[in-house]
Amino acid sequence: MLVVMAQGATDKEIERVCETIRSMGYTPLPMPGAQRTTVGLIGNDRRVDSTRVEELPGVAQVIHVSNPYKQVSREWRPDPTVVTIAPGVSFGGDEVPVIAGPCSVESEEQIVEAARAVKAAGAVALRGGAFKPRSSPYSFQGLGRKGLEMLALAKRETGLAIVTEAMDDEGANLVAEHADCIQIGARNMQNYSLLKTVGRLKKPVLLKRGMAATIEDLLLSAEYVLSEGNPHVILCERGLRSFDTNSRNLFDLTAIPVVHGMSHLPIVADPSHGTGRRDKVIPMARAAVAAGADGIIVEVHPHPEQAMSDGAQSLTPELFGDLMRQLRRVADAVDRQIAGVGAGVA
Amino acid sequence: MLVVMAQGATDKEIERVCETIRSMGYTPLPMPGAQRTTVGLIGNDRRVDSTRVEELPGVAQVIHVSNPYKQVSREWRPDPTVVTIAPGVSFGGDEVPVIAGPCSVESEEQIVEAARAVKAAGAVALRGGAFKPRSSPYSFQGLGRKGLEMLALAKRETGLAIVTEAMDDEGANLVAEHADCIQIGARNMQNYSLLKTVGRLKKPVLLKRGMAATIEDLLLSAEYVLSEGNPHVILCERGLRSFDTNSRNLFDLTAIPVVHGMSHLPIVADPSHGTGRRDKVIPMARAAVAAGADGIIVEVHPHPEQAMSDGAQSLTPELFGDLMRQLRRVADAVDRQIAGVGAGVA
Amino acid sequence: MLVVMAQGATDKEIERVCETIRSMGYTPLPMPGAQRTTVGLIGNDRRVDSTRVEELPGVAQVIHVSNPYKQVSREWRPDPTVVTIAPGVSFGGDEVPVIAGPCSVESEEQIVEAARAVKAAGAVALRGGAFKPRSSPYSFQGLGRKGLEMLALAKRETGLAIVTEAMDDEGANLVAEHADCIQIGARNMQNYSLLKTVGRLKKPVLLKRGMAATIEDLLLSAEYVLSEGNPHVILCERGLRSFDTNSRNLFDLTAIPVVHGMSHLPIVADPSHGTGRRDKVIPMARAAVAAGADGIIVEVHPHPEQAMSDGAQSLTPELFGDLMRQLRRVADAVDRQIAGVGAGVA
Amino acid sequence: MLVVMAQGATDKEIERVCETIRSMGYTPLPMPGAQRTTVGLIGNDRRVDSTRVEELPGVAQVIHVSNPYKQVSREWRPDPTVVTIAPGVSFGGDEVPVIAGPCSVESEEQIVEAARAVKAAGAVALRGGAFKPRSSPYSFQGLGRKGLEMLALAKRETGLAIVTEAMDDEGANLVAEHADCIQIGARNMQNYSLLKTVGRLKKPVLLKRGMAATIEDLLLSAEYVLSEGNPHVILCERGLRSFDTNSRNLFDLTAIPVVHGMSHLPIVADPSHGTGRRDKVIPMARAAVAAGADGIIVEVHPHPEQAMSDGAQSLTPELFGDLMRQLRRVADAVDRQIAGVGAGVA
Repeated sequence: MLVVMAQGATDKEIERVCETIRSMGYTPLPMPGAQRTTVGLIGNDRRVDSTRVEELPGVAQVIHVSNPYKQVSREWRPDPTVVTIAPGVSFGGDEVPVIAGPCSVESEEQIVEAARAVKAAGAVALRGGAFKPRSSPYSFQGLGRKGLEMLALAKRETGLAIVTEAMDDEGANLVAEHADCIQIGARNMQNYSLLKTVGRLKKPVLLKRGMAATIEDLLLSAEYVLSEGNPHVILCERGLRSFDTNSRNLFDLTAIPVVHGMSHLPIVADPSHGTGRRDKVIPMARAAVAAGADGIIVEVHPHPEQAMSDGAQSLTPELFGDLMRQLRRVADAVDRQIAGVGAGVA
Repeated sequence: MLVVMAQGATDKEIERVCETIRSMGYTPLPMPGAQRTTVGLIGNDRRVDSTRVEELPGVAQVIHVSNPYKQVSREWRPDPTVVTIAPGVSFGGDEVPVIAGPCSVESEEQIVEAARAVKAAGAVALRGGAFKPRSSPYSFQGLGRKGLEMLALAKRETGLAIVTEAMDDEGANLVAEHADCIQIGARNMQNYSLLKTVGRLKKPVLLKRGMAATIEDLLLSAEYVLSEGNPHVILCERGLRSFDTNSRNLFDLTAIPVVHGMSHLPIVADPSHGTGRRDKVIPMARAAVAAGADGIIVEVHPHPEQAMSDGAQSLTPELFGDLMRQLRRVADAVDRQIAGVGAGVA
Repeated sequence: MLVVMAQGATDKEIERVCETIRSMGYTPLPMPGAQRTTVGLIGNDRRVDSTRVEELPGVAQVIHVSNPYKQVSREWRPDPTVVTIAPGVSFGGDEVPVIAGPCSVESEEQIVEAARAVKAAGAVALRGGAFKPRSSPYSFQGLGRKGLEMLALAKRETGLAIVTEAMDDEGANLVAEHADCIQIGARNMQNYSLLKTVGRLKKPVLLKRGMAATIEDLLLSAEYVLSEGNPHVILCERGLRSFDTNSRNLFDLTAIPVVHGMSHLPIVADPSHGTGRRDKVIPMARAAVAAGADGIIVEVHPHPEQAMSDGAQSLTPELFGDLMRQLRRVADAVDRQIAGVGAGVA
Repeated sequence: MLVVMAQGATDKEIERVCETIRSMGYTPLPMPGAQRTTVGLIGNDRRVDSTRVEELPGVAQVIHVSNPYKQVSREWRPDPTVVTIAPGVSFGGDEVPVIAGPCSVESEEQIVEAARAVKAAGAVALRGGAFKPRSSPYSFQGLGRKGLEMLALAKRETGLAIVTEAMDDEGANLVAEHADCIQIGARNMQNYSLLKTVGRLKKPVLLKRGMAATIEDLLLSAEYVLSEGNPHVILCERGLRSFDTNSRNLFDLTAIPVVHGMSHLPIVADPSHGTGRRDKVIPMARAAVAAGADGIIVEVHPHPEQAMSDGAQSLTPELFGDLMRQLRRVADAVDRQIAGVGAGVA
C-alpha cells in the first residue's frame, strides 16, 4: 500500500499517517518527492483495510499494490489449470471444447434433438437451462427439476457432458446431482452465498462475468469458490452492458488475454449472449478462438423460431455445423484443436 | 409489438411475419410506409416472446410498445405507494426519513453508540450490516446472527427502526425476525430466488439498484417482490459503475424523477455508496432531496478511521449533524420535511 | 511517478528500471516491500513520459502521483476563480446566474421573444446556437453569421449577456465579435486546435464536458485554454453517455463537488442536455443548485412544439418561470442567490 | 416514424398528434392496439424532426423507423465499397492490408527505420503522427509540417503508402499534400467542420470511432464526408471508454460484423489503441482478422522504450514480424489474404 500525501501536507500530517500504519501492525516508509511525499507500508498481506488512512488530513490518495486475490493468480500458480468436466472434456489445455445447446430445456424431444444435432457437428458438451434467471417474473422460468432429468436423459442418449445453471442453494445441489458442470450466471456472479455453496460442492463451475464486472471482480468471485476448496473453475466472458443497442452486450474479447495474464484459470467465450444476434455469433466465435479462448459456449436450437427464450441469438443446427467447420480452421491457425473433431467429422 | 420490415422486404416475407403472429394467437396489422412496412400486433399482453419473429427473413427490428412490468407501474396504480417500516417511519409521503448508521455492525458498543448519535441528530432508522457482501472472500464478512441481535438491542435502546441486508434465504428469514426492513444489495438485485423469498416474507424491502441496471431492470426486480404478494418495496439509487474513478460510482440522481414518472413506488438515495467519498456525501445528499428523493440512507460511524469497512465514505456524528441541518433547509425549499425533525432539534 | 515491480522481479530488472529513470534525468529511489519492490522517481515535473518504463521486464504497473494538469488545479490557485462574462454576470462567486434560451436561433422574432421571456423570469444571459453540431448532416445546422447578428440584436433589446457555441476557428472569431462567452460543445471538448484558438481569443469560454470524458480529461482541456493565457474558463456538466435510455444522458452531478475539490474554476450544470426530457429538467436543475453548481444553463423556447431542434427538452416560458421560483428557494437553502433576482421578481 | 400513445390517451390527444403530423406535411395513420394506440407517419424522408410531437400530451414515445443516414447504408449501396489509398493498397476487398508504424514521427532516422522494418515484415502502409492530439498541453504535440516531410521521405525510401492524422483545416490541407490517407482521430469524430473539410478534399479518409460513439454515430460522421462528395471512407474500431482499467479501452470487435451489416464501407481495427498493452496486441489483432476486419492498423516502434508517446502499446519490429506471420494464418482460415504477403516473405 502506498499513501500519496497532498502537496503541502505538513510533517504532522505525515507523522499521523505513519502512526496509523504502525497502529495497524505495519511499518511505514516515508519517501519525500519533489512535489509530494509518499508513504509506503512494509509487510502488506492483502488484508489491509485502507479506509482508516484514506481520509486522514493531508492524504491525497491510497494506492494498493498487492492484488486482493490470491489462489486464482498466476503468481500463486504459474501453470495453467486444466479443468476436466467429463472424460475427454477439458478446458485450459491445447484442445478447445465447444458447449452447445438451447437456451432453455423445453421438452424431452427438444433437448434430445438438440443434443443429437450438436453432437453430430462436434460439440462435446450440452448446455440448456432448467432454472432460468429472467428479468421479468412473467417470462418462462424453466422446467426446474424436470428439466434436469431431461438433460440427464440427453446425456445418456449422446454421451455429451452437461453444463447447466443453478440460481440458489437448492438448485445447486440438484444440478450437482444431474450435471457435470454448474453454471453461475452473470446476474449471480456476486451472489457470494451461492459461490460458497458451489465451492463446497466441489463440482466444476462455469462462472460467467457480470454485466459491469471488472476482471478483478470476476477473479475475486472465482476466489470465493477456490477458497472453499474447489479449484475446478472455468471463467466465461459473455459481454458487458453497453450504450450501443446494435448488439445485446459489448463482447469484451480482450478479457481473454487479460485473464490469461493474471490467472491460471481457463476462460471460455459465449458469443450468443456476447452479441445477441444470430448473424454475429459465427464471426465473433471465430474471433474468440483467435484471441485464445479455452472453449466456446453457444446457443443452438433445433427450431429457433419456436424457442421459448433467446430465439434471436440461437443458431440452427445447420449454422452450427458451419460454425464448427470455421472454428476448426481458426483453431488450427492458432495451433490449437477444437475438441472432439474426430467425432464431428466422422 | 411492432415489427419493422427491412427496405425491400418482399410481400412473401411480410406475409410470413403475419402468419407467425397469427400462429402465436394475435392479429397482425400491416402498415405500409414510404420506405418500409411495419406490422403491428393487436392484443399484446406483455408476455409475447418476440424472438420467433425477430430473425424471420426481411425483419429489420422488433419494437416493444407494452411495458414488461405491471404491478409496479404508474399505469397500474396512479397514486404513490407509502411504505411504512415502523410507526412514524414512512417512505413515499411528504416526509423524507433519514436512515443512518455504520456500514457494518462491529460490536455492541459501536452499534449502540452509532444509534444514539444518529438518533440525536434526527435519523429515524438505523442501518448496519450483519451480513456483508464483500468482493473479496478475505474481507470482513459481518457478524451474522450476532450482528442482528446487536441491531435489535440498539433498537430497544433508541427506538430506531432497523434496516439491514440479507444475502440468502436463511439470512432473509433471520433478518425478517430482527429488523423492520430487509435490504437487498446492488449485487443481488437480480438474484431472483432471493427476491421471491422476500416477496413471500411480506416484510418491507429496500431494493438497491444494480451497478449496471436500467430503471426497467430495477422495476422488474421489484415486480418479482410484488408478484409474490408483497407491495412494501422501497427502491434505492446508489450509483452505477463508471469509467471515472474520481467517485466510487456514478450517482444517477435523474433516476429519482424517472422512477416517479414510471412507478408508484418510493425511491431513496444512498449518497455514501453513490459517491464513495466523505466530502461528497453532504452536497450529493442535498442534491438527492432537491431532486425529489423519498428518503436518504447514509453511512455514519462513531469513529470512521477505525471502521472495518467503508471508513472513507462514512460521516462522523458531527458531520451527520451538519448534514441533517442542511437537509432540513433543502427539504423545506421543495415543500417537504425531514422526518422526525422534532426529535432532532430537541 | 512510482514504478511497481512484479513479484519475483530480479535485482537486474530493478536496476534496469533505475537506470532508465536516471537516463531520463531523474533520481530513482527503490523501496523494497514484503511482496514487491516499488521504485520512486524523485523530481517528477509532470512531463515525464512513463512509456519508456512501463514495458521494461519485471514492471507490473506505473503510477502517476503528480497531476498532469497545473494551472487549473486547486494546488496552483487555492481561491475560486470568478469568471465575469458581462457586467453583473459572474460565475464562481455567491451568485448563481441562469443562462436560458432556445437550442437554436431560428429567426429574429423567435430569439427576441425568447430573450424577453427569459429576462422577465430572471435569466441574466441568453443561450442560442448559430452554429449547431448535429449528428446528421441532414439536420438543421444553424443560421451561422446571421444567427449571431440576431443574438446581438436580442442583446441590444434586453441587455442579456450572450453565450453561443463555436465549432471551428472561423466561427470562434465570429462568436468572439458578437457574443460575451464562447461555448465549446461536448463533441469538441478534445478539439485541441479549437481550444488553443479560444485560448488566444481571451474571451470567456464555457467548456462542456465530453460524453465519455473523465474529470481529468475536462480539466486538461481547460488547461489548453489557460495555457494560451486565457484564465476565463467556466466548466459545464451536461451528462454522459449511458446504457439507460430513460434519460438522454447520465447527468453526473457529483462532478460538481469533485471539480470544486480539484480545481478553482467554476462549474455550471445543463439539466436540459443532462436529462433530455422536459419534465426532468426542473427537479434536476434544483439538484444541481443543491449540489453546489455555480450556474445553470437551460433550454427555453417560446413555442417548444415548433422548435427546429431539442423541442422535447425545452421548457416553455411558463415552466421557466416555475423553475426560477424553485431555484431561488433551493439557492437560499444552500446560502447562495440566483443572480438577478431583483429583475426577475419585479 | 411511429408515435406510441400512453395508455388512456384521449381521442382528442390522438387527433392533436395527427394534426401536428399533417401540419408537418405528412400523413398520419392511427393504429389502435389492445393497450395503446400507435400513430404511424407515412412518407418519412429521414429529415422529420420528431421534437414537435414528442412532448404533446398523451404521447408516450416516438420511434424512428428510417435510418438517419443514407449514402453510407447497405440499403443505398448493397455491394462493399473498396477504398484504394495507393496502387495495390485497397480496403474492403479480399485482401487485408496492414498499416504499421510509430505513434509519432520523431525524427528522419526513426521514421525511415520504422518504415523499412514494417515494410520488410509485410506492411503496405506506414502510420505515424505529425499532428498529435494529446490530452495534456504539456505532452509532445508532434513535429507538424516537418513530420509530414519526413513521412514523405519514408515513402520515397520504401514505397509504403502514408496514413497520418489531421486535427484541423490547415492540417488537413497539409496532410492531403503529403499523405495518401487522412486519419481523423477518435476525439475529432464529431468535429463536423473538419469532416466537411476532408469531404471536400476528396482524399481517402480513415475515420476512427469515438470513445463513446455508437455505430450509428460513426456512420453519421462518415455520412458527413460522403455528403460532401467524398466516398473514400475507411472506418476504424479502436476501443471504447471502459470502467475496467486492465485494458486502455474496451475493444469492440463486434462492431466489425455490425458495420458490415449496416454499411458498405470497409472497417479496419486498431488493436494498439484498442488494448493499450503490447502483450494484448497480437491476440487481439488475430481476433480482429477472424471477426472480418478489412485491415489492421498497429503501432510499431524501432525502440519502444525510447518512444515519445504510446511506447507501452508499440510492438518491436521483431514482435511485428511475429504478428504478420500469425495474421497470415488467421486470414487464410477465413478465406482472405494479408495484402503484400509476397513482399513480406520474399
